[in-house]
Amino acid sequence: MSVIEELTEIFRRFPGVGPRQAERFVYYLLRQRKDYLHKMASLIPELENKTKICDLCQKFYISETDQTGVCKICSSKNRDQELLMIIARDADLHSVEKSGTFNGNYFILGGTVPVLDKEPAKRIRLGKLKKVVEKRRESGLKEIIIALSANPEGENTADILKKELQNMASNEIKITLLGRGLSTGTELEYSDSETIKNALLNRF
Amino acid sequence: MSVIEELTEIFRRFPGVGPRQAERFVYYLLRQRKDYLHKMASLIPELENKTKICDLCQKFYISETDQTGVCKICSSKNRDQELLMIIARDADLHSVEKSGTFNGNYFILGGTVPVLDKEPAKRIRLGKLKKVVEKRRESGLKEIIIALSANPEGENTADILKKELQNMASNEIKITLLGRGLSTGTELEYSDSETIKNALLNRF
Amino acid sequence: MSVIEELTEIFRRFPGVGPRQAERFVYYLLRQRKDYLHKMASLIPELENKTKICDLCQKFYISETDQTGVCKICSSKNRDQELLMIIARDADLHSVEKSGTFNGNYFILGGTVPVLDKEPAKRIRLGKLKKVVEKRRESGLKEIIIALSANPEGENTADILKKELQNMASNEIKITLLGRGLSTGTELEYSDSETIKNALLNRF
Amino acid sequence: MSVIEELTEIFRRFPGVGPRQAERFVYYLLRQRKDYLHKMASLIPELENKTKICDLCQKFYISETDQTGVCKICSSKNRDQELLMIIARDADLHSVEKSGTFNGNYFILGGTVPVLDKEPAKRIRLGKLKKVVEKRRESGLKEIIIALSANPEGENTADILKKELQNMASNEIKITLLGRGLSTGTELEYSDSETIKNALLNRF
Repeated sequence: MSVIEELTEIFRRFPGVGPRQAERFVYYLLRQRKDYLHKMASLIPELENKTKICDLCQKFYISETDQTGVCKICSSKNRDQELLMIIARDADLHSVEKSGTFNGNYFILGGTVPVLDKEPAKRIRLGKLKKVVEKRRESGLKEIIIALSANPEGENTADILKKELQNMASNEIKITLLGRGLSTGTELEYSDSETIKNALLNRF
Repeated sequence: MSVIEELTEIFRRFPGVGPRQAERFVYYLLRQRKDYLHKMASLIPELENKTKICDLCQKFYISETDQTGVCKICSSKNRDQELLMIIARDADLHSVEKSGTFNGNYFILGGTVPVLDKEPAKRIRLGKLKKVVEKRRESGLKEIIIALSANPEGENTADILKKELQNMASNEIKITLLGRGLSTGTELEYSDSETIKNALLNRF
Repeated sequence: MSVIEELTEIFRRFPGVGPRQAERFVYYLLRQRKDYLHKMASLIPELENKTKICDLCQKFYISETDQTGVCKICSSKNRDQELLMIIARDADLHSVEKSGTFNGNYFILGGTVPVLDKEPAKRIRLGKLKKVVEKRRESGLKEIIIALSANPEGENTADILKKELQNMASNEIKITLLGRGLSTGTELEYSDSETIKNALLNRF
Repeated sequence: MSVIEELTEIFRRFPGVGPRQAERFVYYLLRQRKDYLHKMASLIPELENKTKICDLCQKFYISETDQTGVCKICSSKNRDQELLMIIARDADLHSVEKSGTFNGNYFILGGTVPVLDKEPAKRIRLGKLKKVVEKRRESGLKEIIIALSANPEGENTADILKKELQNMASNEIKITLLGRGLSTGTELEYSDSETIKNALLNRF
């Protein structure tokens, strides 16, 4: 296999990229200058050298000279230590931070559990989650917000988390779910019964 | 213009129908049997003869021998007279009824008001609404639920309604809006800040 | 069933119309004036009264006072009697006429034959076609152009037609197919091998 | 900017990639193993080290130990030296080769010229093309096939090429265009007049 074919193969496995687009990526790179290619090539291994997974929230963060093993959000004293939001992936964290409406801490599950899946522990970081909750309980954790997508896989995962955390949480820690209702752009005519029910229950 | 062209013109003005599809409709009808065409032709004027607009909720209903001027829902004694839901169109009513979670009465606005529109009274049934609210207040109305789509036009219309109804409503009648949050199928990663904010506020 | 439900059912069976759009059609009609509905209702039976299927080309045409049983194109003396184009449906005729590049006569098959279908005679007007070819042979027919879509179903139908017409056509009448190559808008990069092959063969 | 942000920026400029997908690419890479990242990083500069632009057809090819400056196709003695196909981009070459119906040589223009563009020589390799045609004329070139997309930009570019090559080509060398007609999948009903005209002209 030539370098063109090898790189096409690599790009094909990128999320959402088909064979034709993978090839286009390679031709795009072929047309770039030498120093651009070297710049890009030097950045890729840095993803491994300069990032770590945070011991607490499990997200990738730029570690550089950091020796603590903990990301900026988790080590910040300005975040509300009483709140912990469980989210599926790193990308969800950006959406929530961008909304500017949450100032607690996060835990990234690493995925969700499909309905009927037998081994949730292989899909999500259940063990890590328990340890982090244990640790955060000592620093005043009062509420765990399960913030997963409003679809069957998200709901199944929420059910698993509630069951797993119930014992730990006991009376001191409340477990909550994100509110349901009309999301921005939703038209009443095309809403399903579940959404209408929740929009009515949460009317204000 | 031939009958084929005239009917094509008529179907072109149907909602969501382009010139090609309009033509296909006519060819579809050309292939149908004589009695089918006569059946269809006889039903169309019945839309005018056998339906009325309900004096109360303003929706089209099958009137047949009805002399009351009021539809089945509005004349039912089993509906909760304390609740009135304002919706934009007849089609919204079907979605809410299908959800089986609302047992009050309806009022159909007949549309919504675009942002910056100067004459809302030409877009929606403001005068009729006030009269119906007045009448329903006497039969115990306690809450008006403004149930419009979660988009700028829906929100603009809700603002107008709140202002118009405020005086009338006074203290006895509460005005509410549908709850906001994640609707079924919403993924956290692709949610806008407004939706995340509301989902957090309405967490349960 | 009410008139609203009955008409919704009728529109649901229109080509390319779903249940929601069918309902929208009925609400659209409900909002129209009485005379509009009567106009539309009166046009529909006219599809049956004022149109006929042409004895020769088999297309629907406005017959009015016509007693010949033959449409304007087929009865015109200005059309080239040496050419007969076989097309699948009435709508194809409009496309070809609009192109202004064909001045012969047409025959409308009434459909195409799916690959492996056992009874082509139930799908297309094979019997009628033979009779029309016989008749047109006497008025100087020299070429039959099979003008079907460039897909498996069109090609299968073309194969059937060639076999059926071969005996009849004998030496006097040529049977041809539409040329293949790049159609307007085709990009070379996304072309299949068959199209590239034909575009090369037909280069000019 | 962190390495995550820098790489996201780089991927954003890849063809057809939006900001969200660029971010997904980076998270995808973050989850890969160290040796995978090093493999990928080492391949990228090789695009520059191990490839060359062929002196004749102008396509990128794997040069490795090659000292000739000419790609495999151009140096092959089994290709028909009488035919030269002008195509817009490297990706077009793959489509034509895959069709297995062309055994001549290629010249890659490097793009096409938008209608009304004043400086075609900045968009396409006009100078290089003339030199290559001159050289190939000596080895027996008899036909130049302009194989561009069937859209206004392709047709405009073809017009420019015909004008530029006319003098050179004189009587010995024929200039041809790809044939037009129905391409695979084209439906007659949705065909434009140009396509129908060509399909009729090229009927067989």
